[in-house]
Amino acid sequence: MVSERAIGVFDSGVGGLTVLKELSRQLPAEELIYLGDTARVPYGTKSATTVARYAQEAAQFLTALGVKALVVACNTASAVALPVLEERFRVPVFGVIKPGAARAVQLARGLRVGVIGTEGTIKSSAYTRAIHDLDPRIQVRTAACPLFVPLAEEGWSEHPIAGQVAREYLGDLAAEQIDALVLGCTHYPLLKKILGDFFGSSVALVDSAEETAATVARALAEAGLLRRSPPGPHRFFVTDVPERFERVGGTFWGEPLVGVKQVEIG
Amino acid sequence: MVSERAIGVFDSGVGGLTVLKELSRQLPAEELIYLGDTARVPYGTKSATTVARYAQEAAQFLTALGVKALVVACNTASAVALPVLEERFRVPVFGVIKPGAARAVQLARGLRVGVIGTEGTIKSSAYTRAIHDLDPRIQVRTAACPLFVPLAEEGWSEHPIAGQVAREYLGDLAAEQIDALVLGCTHYPLLKKILGDFFGSSVALVDSAEETAATVARALAEAGLLRRSPPGPHRFFVTDVPERFERVGGTFWGEPLVGVKQVEIG
Repeated sequence: MVSERAIGVFDSGVGGLTVLKELSRQLPAEELIYLGDTARVPYGTKSATTVARYAQEAAQFLTALGVKALVVACNTASAVALPVLEERFRVPVFGVIKPGAARAVQLARGLRVGVIGTEGTIKSSAYTRAIHDLDPRIQVRTAACPLFVPLAEEGWSEHPIAGQVAREYLGDLAAEQIDALVLGCTHYPLLKKILGDFFGSSVALVDSAEETAATVARALAEAGLLRRSPPGPHRFFVTDVPERFERVGGTFWGEPLVGVKQVEIG
Repeated sequence: MVSERAIGVFDSGVGGLTVLKELSRQLPAEELIYLGDTARVPYGTKSATTVARYAQEAAQFLTALGVKALVVACNTASAVALPVLEERFRVPVFGVIKPGAARAVQLARGLRVGVIGTEGTIKSSAYTRAIHDLDPRIQVRTAACPLFVPLAEEGWSEHPIAGQVAREYLGDLAAEQIDALVLGCTHYPLLKKILGDFFGSSVALVDSAEETAATVARALAEAGLLRRSPPGPHRFFVTDVPERFERVGGTFWGEPLVGVKQVEIG
């Protein structure tokens, strides 16, 4: 039965664990398999061609394990690889960009939305396009925040220095009277407190991880693909030695990561 | 004539350009070939086995171009791959660790040396071992500074935030009465001003890039391998699209990088 299969989730590293966490919260009866391509992290600074190749190799690994759906829990890969994954693999494929964009459009009463992400995601204009596909009147303001990822991985998401970096990156965006801010990088949910303090309550923060999990939950329900039997434990794979992933990833996943296996892909 | 061949230099990304710059300053008559393995950057968070494989592939690429010497302008690769490169390739191989360690030993009058670097370099204890090989009495104090690399690549090396990050990472080290501090990462020469301000004039900063270039210059002179004919232009190769390397690398190299070519290795 297809419904009893696991959901496959991949990212370049630990960031996608924020998406996995939301999936496990919103779909507690599902079995999840996570692949972090830690031998080739980060994707954000690499070319579209390279990232599309890596994404196909990750998807190949997960589909070979028989997953019923693929979640691309990485903004960079979602921006450049969704079409090729949808064409090449026979399971439903979900990215993190459309769900975040859709939620931002719902919230944009004054028709102004901010998007923050890595350099690669911002340069790809993927969120701007996804938002304009839904409502071309919306003005999109963007800002790349390259230091947020290393800050989150250092465990400094709520450190005063993260607040100062936010002020440095986001001063212009804060002056733009945005209604909603899309956290366009899977690491950024860890910075929610600092971003909320900086922007104040008039700006709604859109967490792509939450929206993506909700989209997957809805789609599986509609397709009759929700799991019925009790799930086994989630499984975690990485492409480099697991030690750093286990340590840093624990912060993202919210509890210790154990039994992470190293695999070769590509 | 072997002496007329170029010197091959590689790193995972832009950091090794600080070593290239010192080579070009101390050996202005030499032709230099640089390879930045930008499709697989960073090495610092990857396993020793993975990094050793990448280093061999980089060395293979450069020796195929006929270089007369190899400079491993990357602390992580120098820490884990020098023996295998020396065994496998027939040209002299230079790393960045021994030269920095040797200079620190010269400067360590009070027998206390500090070493800062990426998580990978610090965990490898490569500097501590190299220093103790020369003088086992020296006490080595280390600190990993993971955010220094992204700060340097963001162009924030002299930004007040870099100063605060330095205070956060290095408070304990500053209390240790060290005589010399080894900048054990090729990115760190860009942070010299902030580190000098923080530690004051009683701590000598050891720039591994300078020491490595001096070591290469001495070794080539002793072996009669200094170039005699006028050099052609330096050549730059990367393994991912050159755009980001050209932009960020310009800060490290000190002038615009042009004509960077993308190649496949490994």
